[in-house]
Amino acid sequence: MAAYDELMAHARETEALAQVAGRLGWDQETVMPRAAAPQRGEEMAAMESVLHARRSDPRVGDWLAEANASGEVEAAQLRQIRRAFDRANKVPAKLASAIARVTSEAQGAWAEARAADDVAAFLPVLQEVVALKREEGAALSAGGDVYDAMLDDYEPGATAADLSQMFGALRPRLVELRAAILETEAPPALEGVFDESAQMKLARQIAKTFGYDMARGRVDKAVHPFSSGSGLDVRITTRTDELDPFNCIYSTIHEVGHGAYEQNVDRRYLLTPLGQGASMGVHESQSRIYENQIGRSRAFTGWLYGQMREAFGDFGIADEETFFGTVNRVQNGYIRTEADEVQYNLHVLLRFDLERALIARDLEVEDLEAAWNERFEADFGFAVDKPSHGVLQDVHWSVGLFGYFATYTLGNVYAGCLHQSMRAALPELDAALAQGNTTPATDWLQEKVQRHGGLVPPRELIENACGFTPNEAPLLDYLEEKFSAIYKL
Amino acid sequence: MAAYDELMAHARETEALAQVAGRLGWDQETVMPRAAAPQRGEEMAAMESVLHARRSDPRVGDWLAEANASGEVEAAQLRQIRRAFDRANKVPAKLASAIARVTSEAQGAWAEARAADDVAAFLPVLQEVVALKREEGAALSAGGDVYDAMLDDYEPGATAADLSQMFGALRPRLVELRAAILETEAPPALEGVFDESAQMKLARQIAKTFGYDMARGRVDKAVHPFSSGSGLDVRITTRTDELDPFNCIYSTIHEVGHGAYEQNVDRRYLLTPLGQGASMGVHESQSRIYENQIGRSRAFTGWLYGQMREAFGDFGIADEETFFGTVNRVQNGYIRTEADEVQYNLHVLLRFDLERALIARDLEVEDLEAAWNERFEADFGFAVDKPSHGVLQDVHWSVGLFGYFATYTLGNVYAGCLHQSMRAALPELDAALAQGNTTPATDWLQEKVQRHGGLVPPRELIENACGFTPNEAPLLDYLEEKFSAIYKL
Repeated sequence: MAAYDELMAHARETEALAQVAGRLGWDQETVMPRAAAPQRGEEMAAMESVLHARRSDPRVGDWLAEANASGEVEAAQLRQIRRAFDRANKVPAKLASAIARVTSEAQGAWAEARAADDVAAFLPVLQEVVALKREEGAALSAGGDVYDAMLDDYEPGATAADLSQMFGALRPRLVELRAAILETEAPPALEGVFDESAQMKLARQIAKTFGYDMARGRVDKAVHPFSSGSGLDVRITTRTDELDPFNCIYSTIHEVGHGAYEQNVDRRYLLTPLGQGASMGVHESQSRIYENQIGRSRAFTGWLYGQMREAFGDFGIADEETFFGTVNRVQNGYIRTEADEVQYNLHVLLRFDLERALIARDLEVEDLEAAWNERFEADFGFAVDKPSHGVLQDVHWSVGLFGYFATYTLGNVYAGCLHQSMRAALPELDAALAQGNTTPATDWLQEKVQRHGGLVPPRELIENACGFTPNEAPLLDYLEEKFSAIYKL
Repeated sequence: MAAYDELMAHARETEALAQVAGRLGWDQETVMPRAAAPQRGEEMAAMESVLHARRSDPRVGDWLAEANASGEVEAAQLRQIRRAFDRANKVPAKLASAIARVTSEAQGAWAEARAADDVAAFLPVLQEVVALKREEGAALSAGGDVYDAMLDDYEPGATAADLSQMFGALRPRLVELRAAILETEAPPALEGVFDESAQMKLARQIAKTFGYDMARGRVDKAVHPFSSGSGLDVRITTRTDELDPFNCIYSTIHEVGHGAYEQNVDRRYLLTPLGQGASMGVHESQSRIYENQIGRSRAFTGWLYGQMREAFGDFGIADEETFFGTVNRVQNGYIRTEADEVQYNLHVLLRFDLERALIARDLEVEDLEAAWNERFEADFGFAVDKPSHGVLQDVHWSVGLFGYFATYTLGNVYAGCLHQSMRAALPELDAALAQGNTTPATDWLQEKVQRHGGLVPPRELIENACGFTPNEAPLLDYLEEKFSAIYKL
């Protein structure tokens, strides 16, 4: 067999095993018996060890040295395999397993500290995580910028310098927009009790409306909604709260964005290194454009209003126009995951700046809480009342996810760019959305973004799709226009 | 690290991976999206290939050569690892993968042939399966008896000669008992419609009654009930039929027998080669004694009668005594999985004799149907009406499971032995069962059998538990006594 074919046969089996490992994660969050956790930890560790050994296998290096790419697809496959091979070989196995052990412990410590609002209890183990991640970053960067190496793990090609410039342009206009909105009168909030099984029924129907294929997926409940898997088995989860049906509906639409992306990758890439989304940022662009630019648009919420009245009867909102405002209410809040479109990115930018300083040793772990609280008050205009509403609110740092937060805002920026181009290409889109028909939009996204999987590097993929260099202006313009209209600014 | 410790660390990771592979099977039968099957096939194959490579790893051979067992447990661990190592190395990887490919195809062909009642459509692929299994058996037996090597795969130490003697003693007394029963008047059958969610609720309650730990397990529905997993994550499935609540109840109790066995293995053996049931036969002894000797006893069915009246109201059976007869009704039937305690083993003996002849080339695949029909009429007194009621009824041969059927009857024989000793040890057992309290029985089984996992070879384990050499007499005595009373023979 030629080196390329041997390499691909090996990679295919590795991808299949990665799917299995991913499904263990799904199982853990949805159906696993509660006392199974210790055994599950060993099962996950065993799968990770198998995957690491396969990715760093010296034979992969030999095949890579010999293999010839006969075309664009083959070249992209080799690029992805080389990326995984280099990464697996740069991080010593001992360090990787120390990170796995410490972050597993840190996650438990974080959960306890958050529940007790006790920052001091979390700091020692966070200290350890940061130290190990700095070490890993140094190994990955091989003399280059450590934080860039971390970013590259989630967003190939991204640099802190580029992102800083983009985020620096976002921040003042978002702070200003937020302040202007909060000075005016808010649309009415949703009130009442909404049957949870009716919410799930509606959520499943909406998932299908957005093109999510139930024959290759399923929708379950989980504490924190997520999507999982690629190809023919892509599952999503959502949650219900009888006082807040929007949580269920928009969590579902968001996860459907991730899930549909994975389902829509070109079938020829199934179980190959190209058979997944291009990056975390591009992934988030899909989940966000489904959720916000489409799902929270005036046209689509008009249709949704009718669906909700069918499901729940009269729920006290007078008409579509008022409902549009209710869906897009902006209000003060501490929590990133509960934030609206306007404030969400301010939460992310705060974390990006703090974690970058942490990794660069410009900020030490013991000063993190003070830095958080100061920055929060500067951007949001009020003080954090307790750590679980501040520095302890997200699991990410305990799991060692440094460089990850940035992809949330990058995804929103990409969604803004894609939305601008999509609107230009589909002048009749609102008429379809008003009928609950998202197909023109999802077809456009499938054609321009989703079907390509990992074929093209993320930034290039978005640039090809949009026809211009990705930048923050379309997102800002969209937000200012939409919320000026709702809030009559 | 000492060779033994290195070997055990390796084995522990292998066991964790085997649990993952097992859970993929559970997922496939319960929650997998229907269009995911092709991808799942590749995922399973990748896991099998990883497991085979680990079990046959030459380092395992080196460690085995060097390792010293410091006690009984260590010696048993080495015995189990050596067994798996020898097996993995005896069967050439090419043959193993040919068997995997052909049996996967054969399973589909069997399902279609059964649906169409078309034996001829199934024979060519069965031919291939038998040829490959003969080849595998030859590799495993290394010059010894081929069928014994197959048996040994499921029941370490069992031989066709021993089983034939045992089964030969069973058959005439079972044929005679069956004929006598069917000449007398049967107890009334169950009639009416039984709400399926009430069945599941009752089934879950009964599972707990039998000591199944829901914190380390779960009960779902599947087309064919099964149990899956070891240690801290042992799941069972059952099924419901609104006309036949006994199907749900006794499938659940049967699978609880398997599941509780796995849950009750000594926690020190978790994720080691000893951390599972000793053999298929011992496993079946637990599921059968839970289901039949306990679950279909006069005392327990008295309690169950009350539970069913609570769940379903008056369902037309006048009293406990009549209900006991209804639960234990014997009637003509073609299908093994629907057979009562008296006839079940006759179905198994038929398959044992036919498959043994097939493997020994005393019977060829093209003559299998005729041989089946002839034997069936001899033992059951009436003719098979169509292949789906005869030679096409079981999936086993299409999957390559030769040597497996025997463990069903061996399990029943072991259950008979264990029941005799348990009754002698627990003279007050019926008083507890009449209150729905199975704890004295399950505690006895846990102490004598379940906690030992794979520590002791199966036959020795049962002999230690019973205090006598396992044989068919206790099962026959029990059946004759029980059914003579019910049918007033």
